[in-house]
Amino acid sequence: MSDKVDLLSWTCPVPLRHYPTIVMGHGAGGQMMADLIRHLFAPAFANEWLEQMGDATVLAALTGDRPDAQLAFTTDSFVVSPLFFPGGNIGELAVNGTVNDLAMRGARPLFLSAGFILEEGLPLETLGRIVQAMAEAARRAGVAIVAGDTKVVQKGHGDGIYINTSGIGLVQPGVKIGPSNARPGDVVLVSGTMGDHGIAVLSVREGLAFETTVQSDTAPLYSLVETMLAAGEVHCLRDATRGGLAAVLNELAVASHVGIEFEEQSVPLKPAVSAACEMLGLDPLYIANEGKLVAIVAAQSAEAILAAMRAHEYGREAAIIGRVTDTHAGLVIARTAIGGQRLVDLPAGELLPRIC
Amino acid sequence: MSDKVDLLSWTCPVPLRHYPTIVMGHGAGGQMMADLIRHLFAPAFANEWLEQMGDATVLAALTGDRPDAQLAFTTDSFVVSPLFFPGGNIGELAVNGTVNDLAMRGARPLFLSAGFILEEGLPLETLGRIVQAMAEAARRAGVAIVAGDTKVVQKGHGDGIYINTSGIGLVQPGVKIGPSNARPGDVVLVSGTMGDHGIAVLSVREGLAFETTVQSDTAPLYSLVETMLAAGEVHCLRDATRGGLAAVLNELAVASHVGIEFEEQSVPLKPAVSAACEMLGLDPLYIANEGKLVAIVAAQSAEAILAAMRAHEYGREAAIIGRVTDTHAGLVIARTAIGGQRLVDLPAGELLPRIC
Repeated sequence: MSDKVDLLSWTCPVPLRHYPTIVMGHGAGGQMMADLIRHLFAPAFANEWLEQMGDATVLAALTGDRPDAQLAFTTDSFVVSPLFFPGGNIGELAVNGTVNDLAMRGARPLFLSAGFILEEGLPLETLGRIVQAMAEAARRAGVAIVAGDTKVVQKGHGDGIYINTSGIGLVQPGVKIGPSNARPGDVVLVSGTMGDHGIAVLSVREGLAFETTVQSDTAPLYSLVETMLAAGEVHCLRDATRGGLAAVLNELAVASHVGIEFEEQSVPLKPAVSAACEMLGLDPLYIANEGKLVAIVAAQSAEAILAAMRAHEYGREAAIIGRVTDTHAGLVIARTAIGGQRLVDLPAGELLPRIC
Repeated sequence: MSDKVDLLSWTCPVPLRHYPTIVMGHGAGGQMMADLIRHLFAPAFANEWLEQMGDATVLAALTGDRPDAQLAFTTDSFVVSPLFFPGGNIGELAVNGTVNDLAMRGARPLFLSAGFILEEGLPLETLGRIVQAMAEAARRAGVAIVAGDTKVVQKGHGDGIYINTSGIGLVQPGVKIGPSNARPGDVVLVSGTMGDHGIAVLSVREGLAFETTVQSDTAPLYSLVETMLAAGEVHCLRDATRGGLAAVLNELAVASHVGIEFEEQSVPLKPAVSAACEMLGLDPLYIANEGKLVAIVAAQSAEAILAAMRAHEYGREAAIIGRVTDTHAGLVIARTAIGGQRLVDLPAGELLPRIC
């Protein structure tokens, strides 16, 4: 027992001392979450694989004699509220989210696990519909749900249902995608309109009525990635979930030690999302997506990759939005409509809680 | 959207109609949970891998040209209350639990993911101590935590912290262990005293004071399994968590279409656990363990495997408790101290909620 008692002491690292307890911002995909990962989780779990800090972790060791086929592994918990929203539900999100994390490493998603934390009192019919939606999403994404676990917590200790999915994928031969691979001169693309998912969830949560219903963009992105890889040289891929486009560009700029500049005007936005953001004082660059990716590609491949994306059902509104620079490393600059420039920071803490 | 709307209808299968909402028993490892898996999850997710219904799923496909080295994959969520208990805590449990699920398929645990659902207001120091405990448990078990996710839910929608761990292991060459491999004549062993974990958690939860403090038995069991595999022919392995020894024996009897008989007197019990169970009216056969396994082995290997187990730190009190029979297939019979027989059923619903 003595060693067990010893390890139960922990000293809070200085950068985390602003908040003695967990607040919503620690899960929002911004600076506070990055600090928690950097100063609490990463030092404790430190290992060569975790250092990749990608959407999924590539595990070379496991495929032994086959250096051309590596496994990718990822995990994601889903706590979205409400459970059903325009264009999707927590079950569909739980499958697509993990499928997309694998896809962002160029890995074909193969196997998922599903861990359920159910709150006492959840209607069985709600669970049944969510599980149906997961099964259907798995079929569309071409993955099999092969392992599961169910826990039940007392009423008042959950929120209907929380789902964790973990996934295993096979990195396609020759693919080298990673957050630190952006090079000055590379081109930045997005696969479609930004902010749809966040606004869709927000609209039902707050009982807001916009002129047009905004649908979540939840979608499995591996086939889009496959199309892009066939069309040219892709350096970085990231799905723009919590923290939105702004968080992704900041993470890539820091990981690759480069600057990123983009034209605000070039970022595709649905008019309804734009209107909702204006009304609510939100910046669409920070709103979550669940079926959109951000790509950084070699300049000479950009047009071919863009054309390939636009020919794909999940990339019809893809656009080139900016460039990687060798100045202001680690920083993201937006050029505004009237020719100004502004620094686009990592969001500090909470914007929209429980969006996924 | 139309297909999305269609799939959102779900008809409750007849065997699940007793309970229109989720109750604690659905997560207790007994008959109700088995029904939920059989009639809700399994039909929706149906695939050849899920049918294995083991502690972990063996994925032959992934290792291609190496039929001697297959991957195992598993997931487990941890919602234990309280978070710290005599002999362990939720973090240690989350690592050992998933490590053990892999070990029960004869797979060397290699990689874990960790998904955290944090409740607003959780002291950062509590999180820090739990993460330290996970890191230490991972080191002991020889696994690397290589992927993670953090979500935060509002106060009143969680219980401090829930942890999901998923794990990947490498099935050792030539190993063929599975719940359906028990054969008449085989011998049933347990690796040590039963019920320690459940009683340890219960004692702090209910503020019960027993004469002796019962410590949780949480431990990583792969090295014990390795020792057993080297000593003889192992047919089935299962860690006796939720539902205890009784649930495991029932699952193995059903999966292998055999009967199981055991001597109640032969089941190792700590006197303090025995006393606590008597006082509380609990049957120790149904109480959860977190560092104990049940093995079904070939008769000619039983003594050698028992000796190997007793020489291992996590098997010192291992014992032969019974036999597999070709009569009463699917049923488990205990022979009592006074020579009687009783049917040991799968527990119906809830015994001790939130034990892991």
